[in-house]
Amino acid sequence: MARNTQVAADHHAPPVTQILAEFVAHHPSRGWSDAVDHEAHRTFLNWLGCAVGAAHHEAADAALAAVNLLQPAPQASVLGRRDKLDMASAALLNGITSHTFDFDDTHLKTIIHPAGPVASAVLALAEHTGSSGRELIDALVIGIDVACRVGNAMYPDHYDRGWHITGSTGTLGAATACARLLKLDTQKTAMALGIAASQPIGMREQFGTMTKPFHPGGAARAGLLSALLASQGFTASAKALEAPRGMMQTVSTKNDWSEITSELGQRFEISFNSYKPFACGIVIHPSIDACAQLRAQDVRPEQIERIELKVHSLVLELTGKKEPADGLQAKFSVYHGCAAGLTFGFAAEDEFSDAIVNRPDMVALRRKVVATVDDSIDEASADVTAVLTDGRRVHVFVEHAIGSLQNPMTDALLEAKFHGLADPVLGAAPTAALLQACWGVGSAPNVKALITLATPALP
Amino acid sequence: MARNTQVAADHHAPPVTQILAEFVAHHPSRGWSDAVDHEAHRTFLNWLGCAVGAAHHEAADAALAAVNLLQPAPQASVLGRRDKLDMASAALLNGITSHTFDFDDTHLKTIIHPAGPVASAVLALAEHTGSSGRELIDALVIGIDVACRVGNAMYPDHYDRGWHITGSTGTLGAATACARLLKLDTQKTAMALGIAASQPIGMREQFGTMTKPFHPGGAARAGLLSALLASQGFTASAKALEAPRGMMQTVSTKNDWSEITSELGQRFEISFNSYKPFACGIVIHPSIDACAQLRAQDVRPEQIERIELKVHSLVLELTGKKEPADGLQAKFSVYHGCAAGLTFGFAAEDEFSDAIVNRPDMVALRRKVVATVDDSIDEASADVTAVLTDGRRVHVFVEHAIGSLQNPMTDALLEAKFHGLADPVLGAAPTAALLQACWGVGSAPNVKALITLATPALP
Repeated sequence: MARNTQVAADHHAPPVTQILAEFVAHHPSRGWSDAVDHEAHRTFLNWLGCAVGAAHHEAADAALAAVNLLQPAPQASVLGRRDKLDMASAALLNGITSHTFDFDDTHLKTIIHPAGPVASAVLALAEHTGSSGRELIDALVIGIDVACRVGNAMYPDHYDRGWHITGSTGTLGAATACARLLKLDTQKTAMALGIAASQPIGMREQFGTMTKPFHPGGAARAGLLSALLASQGFTASAKALEAPRGMMQTVSTKNDWSEITSELGQRFEISFNSYKPFACGIVIHPSIDACAQLRAQDVRPEQIERIELKVHSLVLELTGKKEPADGLQAKFSVYHGCAAGLTFGFAAEDEFSDAIVNRPDMVALRRKVVATVDDSIDEASADVTAVLTDGRRVHVFVEHAIGSLQNPMTDALLEAKFHGLADPVLGAAPTAALLQACWGVGSAPNVKALITLATPALP
Repeated sequence: MARNTQVAADHHAPPVTQILAEFVAHHPSRGWSDAVDHEAHRTFLNWLGCAVGAAHHEAADAALAAVNLLQPAPQASVLGRRDKLDMASAALLNGITSHTFDFDDTHLKTIIHPAGPVASAVLALAEHTGSSGRELIDALVIGIDVACRVGNAMYPDHYDRGWHITGSTGTLGAATACARLLKLDTQKTAMALGIAASQPIGMREQFGTMTKPFHPGGAARAGLLSALLASQGFTASAKALEAPRGMMQTVSTKNDWSEITSELGQRFEISFNSYKPFACGIVIHPSIDACAQLRAQDVRPEQIERIELKVHSLVLELTGKKEPADGLQAKFSVYHGCAAGLTFGFAAEDEFSDAIVNRPDMVALRRKVVATVDDSIDEASADVTAVLTDGRRVHVFVEHAIGSLQNPMTDALLEAKFHGLADPVLGAAPTAALLQACWGVGSAPNVKALITLATPALP
């Protein structure tokens, strides 16, 4: 029988399962710079705001209705709601909501959205076990490091063949973060990683459906269960990641093992995390930013004769929808993005609502955008000229949009984004208190106070 | 950026997600021959015996301890134990135990063990929802058909690259079986299949660890949840299986779509299911069978001077361990297999216990086996000659071992196997009653009576 018994890319892979388990179990608490620790708080805060903001989305309602058929015990909270679920189900729900608006964090090198699987799993576990905020942040940094390092090793082949890399590496991140929080030893941590390695979740074909945000949620749930299983003596291969028939070689032909081992415990991938200022695909961000800068220069929609937009061809290929019919389509319309930037100065979830997208002034303004392709402009940049009715021309060139690694969201902008997401769910004053709790979580004796603040008051 | 944007094997795949959903939702109850229906009962019975038999294995204990950390509601039963868990956790546990002894059913064309994921999910759901036995058997036939047809389409490439095909296709089988039991319409069944398509489970590297039987258990749990999500309006891609970035093209470069569509609703893959008479790798079965036939001809161990065994080279490559140290190693020793066949006439789980493997008479007998390679003998056959101390030679040639499709286990042998597994857990008389309930499940108004019989009495 002629069989394609795929030759392993590397028969002599280093023992990365063991190496990562040793790191997860033994890296010191807060064993990184203050800058890394602050980034962890920014990641946590941004993730929490996204989860609260989408708490009442129809995807959350459907998932909650399904999970309630299992009659879960009230162990952990659904953020932004009063529902309590067992830890694994709460991890699932918060993972779903945090990714529903496509507004969560991005590890740009791999396009992984790392907080969804990792924070969702570890916060649910921390709530039930009464962990400290420091243990939570430690687990978050370490879990994200594992997921993104495995992602670095497999990217781009793994992504290109169809995997939604957030879910496929997320199970590993969630499992190791939970193993850390449970204080598992190296051996049991390796087993948690091993069990998780058999459960990569998510295909890119699901983009545009509720199953896309299911991916980080499902990964959170699967990773948490993997750690619980390992804690009770369940076994897996100690080479589950790197063996020829282990996870990585099964789901990717590219495996650069040095991405896992190099500077482990010294360089932390959470340092390279970024946050979206705008609730849409990242390729539109420079154009929105440029139009927001026009507005900051007192250019007003009613003055506009024409907006001349020059962008890389990829931008129009991915987001060239001229007449979006609703909010979802508008997320793929650089024309709507420009109109929103000029009208509001930003474009959060509300600015992609059906009502805003179909407002006559917005429709009129986006039709004034004339886009042309210029491949000498980087895909992360945008060149915009506003031609005004009085004949004046106002030009803005954005090299690195706000939210990029080169031009990160400031803490103040992250707070504004958080308010925009959470105020409608929790109210402005409770949201402000929750923000403070997020910034201080690393020194909180217990995560429960923060979770109480993320729970809406009784109506 | 040079990217390997893998060209899809077939851009014009038929809409198999939709085609399967239509079949699952609308194929008539018992819409197949009596022979198919009987095979479904044999599959169910064999699966149940395996699950009961391993109910107290350390893998089950560890998984149960982990799941109990989630404080599950008592919705459904762990077979062979008194524990009750929520439906999804019960599906996980029964999926694990049914595969723990490597003694469950095999769809030989794909090496899928189909009942583990499908029956585990659907029985837990049927218990909680109070379904009839007919609904259970209908769902089992249909779920197994979906899993094995997708397996047929992807095999062998998918398996060769490292996937444990039982878990990776099992999620689809479990989801569709549960969708059928829940009477979901075509649209929601397609969504269940779509959600499940993002959750293929299991790598072959895990063989030899508890995570191997976790694969069917995890697939049962994931498939059940996928159906529950779909029932509550959760959405997925309607092309989740066949799209270029859908599941099948992501996890396999071979995709023969006609394996899914051809004779759908006319040919049922459960017809090609087989059952192991011996609790070890299938390649040893002909040799055990041959030695059991020697015993049936009154050849006794004490008469043996030498056993001349001629087999295909693959047999010695996979199971050539001459001096197994324990039960697990003995499962990879054709020498021990021959000794067990001649001594006991069979080789169930007990005959692979450490105690039996190290018994002096067994050690002495297996050392008298002289194995030689003869590649003119098929790998599914064995040629054995017993050379007796009085100089006589007794020859047996087994072309198709008992348990193969050509020489299937009779109902009586399945019952004997069931007793061997379940008697130690439930007692002989309750096991006999449970056997009768299994044969009659297709006409039972409710599955609960059968489940009560699979629950041990209070000590």
